[in-house]
Amino acid sequence: MQTSSLHHRPALRAGLLGFGTVGAGTHGVLASNRATIRARAGCAIDLTMVATRTASRARAAADDGIEVLDDPMQLVRHPGLDVVIEAMGGTTDARDCVLEAIAHGKHVVTANKALLATHGEEIFAAADAQGVTVGFEAAVAVSIPIVKALREGLVANEIEWLVGIVNGTSNYVLTQMGAAGRSYADALAEAQALGYAEADPSLDVGGGDAAHKLALLAAMAFGGPPRLGEVHVEGIDALQAVDFLHAARLGYAVKLLAVARRCGGELQLRVHPALVPRASLLAQVDGRMNGIMVKGNAAGVTMYYGAGAGARETASAVVADLVDLARALRGGGRMCVPALGFHEGAAASPVMAARGGVRSRNYLRLGLDGPDAGARALDALARHGVPAAKGVQSHNTLVVLTQEVPESSMALAMRELGAMAGVQPGLTRLRVEALDQG
Amino acid sequence: MQTSSLHHRPALRAGLLGFGTVGAGTHGVLASNRATIRARAGCAIDLTMVATRTASRARAAADDGIEVLDDPMQLVRHPGLDVVIEAMGGTTDARDCVLEAIAHGKHVVTANKALLATHGEEIFAAADAQGVTVGFEAAVAVSIPIVKALREGLVANEIEWLVGIVNGTSNYVLTQMGAAGRSYADALAEAQALGYAEADPSLDVGGGDAAHKLALLAAMAFGGPPRLGEVHVEGIDALQAVDFLHAARLGYAVKLLAVARRCGGELQLRVHPALVPRASLLAQVDGRMNGIMVKGNAAGVTMYYGAGAGARETASAVVADLVDLARALRGGGRMCVPALGFHEGAAASPVMAARGGVRSRNYLRLGLDGPDAGARALDALARHGVPAAKGVQSHNTLVVLTQEVPESSMALAMRELGAMAGVQPGLTRLRVEALDQG
Repeated sequence: MQTSSLHHRPALRAGLLGFGTVGAGTHGVLASNRATIRARAGCAIDLTMVATRTASRARAAADDGIEVLDDPMQLVRHPGLDVVIEAMGGTTDARDCVLEAIAHGKHVVTANKALLATHGEEIFAAADAQGVTVGFEAAVAVSIPIVKALREGLVANEIEWLVGIVNGTSNYVLTQMGAAGRSYADALAEAQALGYAEADPSLDVGGGDAAHKLALLAAMAFGGPPRLGEVHVEGIDALQAVDFLHAARLGYAVKLLAVARRCGGELQLRVHPALVPRASLLAQVDGRMNGIMVKGNAAGVTMYYGAGAGARETASAVVADLVDLARALRGGGRMCVPALGFHEGAAASPVMAARGGVRSRNYLRLGLDGPDAGARALDALARHGVPAAKGVQSHNTLVVLTQEVPESSMALAMRELGAMAGVQPGLTRLRVEALDQG
Repeated sequence: MQTSSLHHRPALRAGLLGFGTVGAGTHGVLASNRATIRARAGCAIDLTMVATRTASRARAAADDGIEVLDDPMQLVRHPGLDVVIEAMGGTTDARDCVLEAIAHGKHVVTANKALLATHGEEIFAAADAQGVTVGFEAAVAVSIPIVKALREGLVANEIEWLVGIVNGTSNYVLTQMGAAGRSYADALAEAQALGYAEADPSLDVGGGDAAHKLALLAAMAFGGPPRLGEVHVEGIDALQAVDFLHAARLGYAVKLLAVARRCGGELQLRVHPALVPRASLLAQVDGRMNGIMVKGNAAGVTMYYGAGAGARETASAVVADLVDLARALRGGGRMCVPALGFHEGAAASPVMAARGGVRSRNYLRLGLDGPDAGARALDALARHGVPAAKGVQSHNTLVVLTQEVPESSMALAMRELGAMAGVQPGLTRLRVEALDQG
């Protein structure tokens, strides 16, 4: 095991894997803000080595006197580095490189939420055994120091719930659908044209990316490992513009939420579109921005807002992790914040809630055919223990806000409505997320 | 010098000075969340001693097996403590106690913004010399981990500006004036009746408390010591309900802002009521809540929201500082984050902006007497280089939004308007604060 101290060293020496958006952004911020970063860290942070196959971009790094390698494995094994910044993406090569860096006594900083949500337990354990740290502030809501808030700032609290808008691409699409009345397809095409969405946007609009982030957030808030497989995921691709209008009339915005909620000792993890009260701060998180609201039993509700993507925005978090490390090494100790905020063995993993028992309020939109279909639909809901808190019928559309009911009742009620004469196929159901703001 | 390590120690031993709101809240949160705090800190945090003259409350502490003393000096000198929590308030005895605790090798945690804004430089230097730390997360916007965000999370950024609502009492009064059309006197009386405002509310509504917090925030954002004397302060006590109506019609809310802004290499520090665009997240920070928006050159705009007062809310931050300390001592090193975020000697103190050169947009309300007084007033403004971006006249009232102009031009223009025939005495002027949200 090699560990490093900065007691007699003028700089933290960093190597960078990958020179795409995150890598180039980190290179840029370290250069443009060099004096301030040095003053805050207490020593320089020197990017001395880059491994990349992007030849043209690598030239920019080489111009700064940075050694450019082809082979990431050569970089992670290099004895002249204190820390490796993993900015290559993916979960296969990235995992191999990160584990190899750790095995060589290197600290690691990464923005790779997919990697940590999938292989975090293995990676954190390896780092712990080697006495190195894995910084991942950039992995969730890049510019917002939410990892620091959960692992350190809110450490005195039993967390009750955490609700976040953590995927900028889908939030941009939803904002366009809500503000401009665009269809999902049009809003997505616009996002793609602007470079806000990938050619294959499925990880963003399908909720998978938000699930990666939620798994990490929930582990820090409630203890236990990242439990990606336990996250219930619904995307935004089935949403229709008309539901944004109905929601607005009822006082709500539509957002893709990542929700971790402890209820009666059980933990819910879910990603789905939901109606959010217009008056809530989360409803005002628009465009590509991210926002995360956390309720603790001491702090009450706190909320964090900022950019969810971008080269320099991500670099802001990557460099914060580097400075944490530089300060700790300079102080002569090791980093003392556990990877997920709990010391080994101390965190009781909360029990996962069974799906059917999860309670929510709901928004339902039904197309009706007969004159009495609306009344019969409301009857059917009531019969299944899904009383309407509010029902608005106009022409052949019935919009219902239900009271809070368990998922199992909702499922039965929706099955009956789906088969009911006079109710058109293609029932729309969205959850309504209550947010106590203060 | 005594320093302490937790390598072979099962607990961080804390002594508490004062058992008022903050002290009792800290005692309560340490008790109610004991298991979670221990799991996160890696060791127990034991409150072993309290010094207080509040006998009845002290009994609650004594019931928990805590030793209760009369004499704070006896506590800060006690060899069995690792850290002293200063919750006595004030700046005289508190200063003596904190310096004595430091001299005896104790770490200090405090929520006392007045103390640190006034004597911070002396206290931080003493702590540095003794190798101990002074935690003050609770001193600004209690439940929001903004100290951590500025000193650590945003450390990669050159900060461009920081705008905060950091006084819950005045924000409650302004929210009531805006929402319910209450007069200042009525809203303040209500706040006092609810216990949200002190019998002598001058530190809150006069802007002094916000200035204490701004001095600390600005030091962390821009470097240099807390410069309380450099903060331009205006309170909310002269505000009239009618201006909230005009502001709302123009698309603005009225808030008491604490502003630190770097402009052309110069730093502005100011606390004053201002018009804030309704669409801004800061405009939605209502009631007793606090919100702070920060613009950095890498992260862009981030925003932090939470309770600005309360026993458990303050304790959330106090305990976070204790856990930071417990983790650092457990890790075998010393705390490695400098008190104000910059390492000694490294932070260039920014030059203060001269008052007359500070530029702002402005809201003006004038009472008019003659039929042509409005046109003459607009002429006078233009003559002094204060062009109106918008002017609305109805009956005998003229409301003007000016373009961005230097304070010196504003002062001259207002002097002329104040002496102009046809313009009634008691001109109202408020600044308009632009907030780029994303």
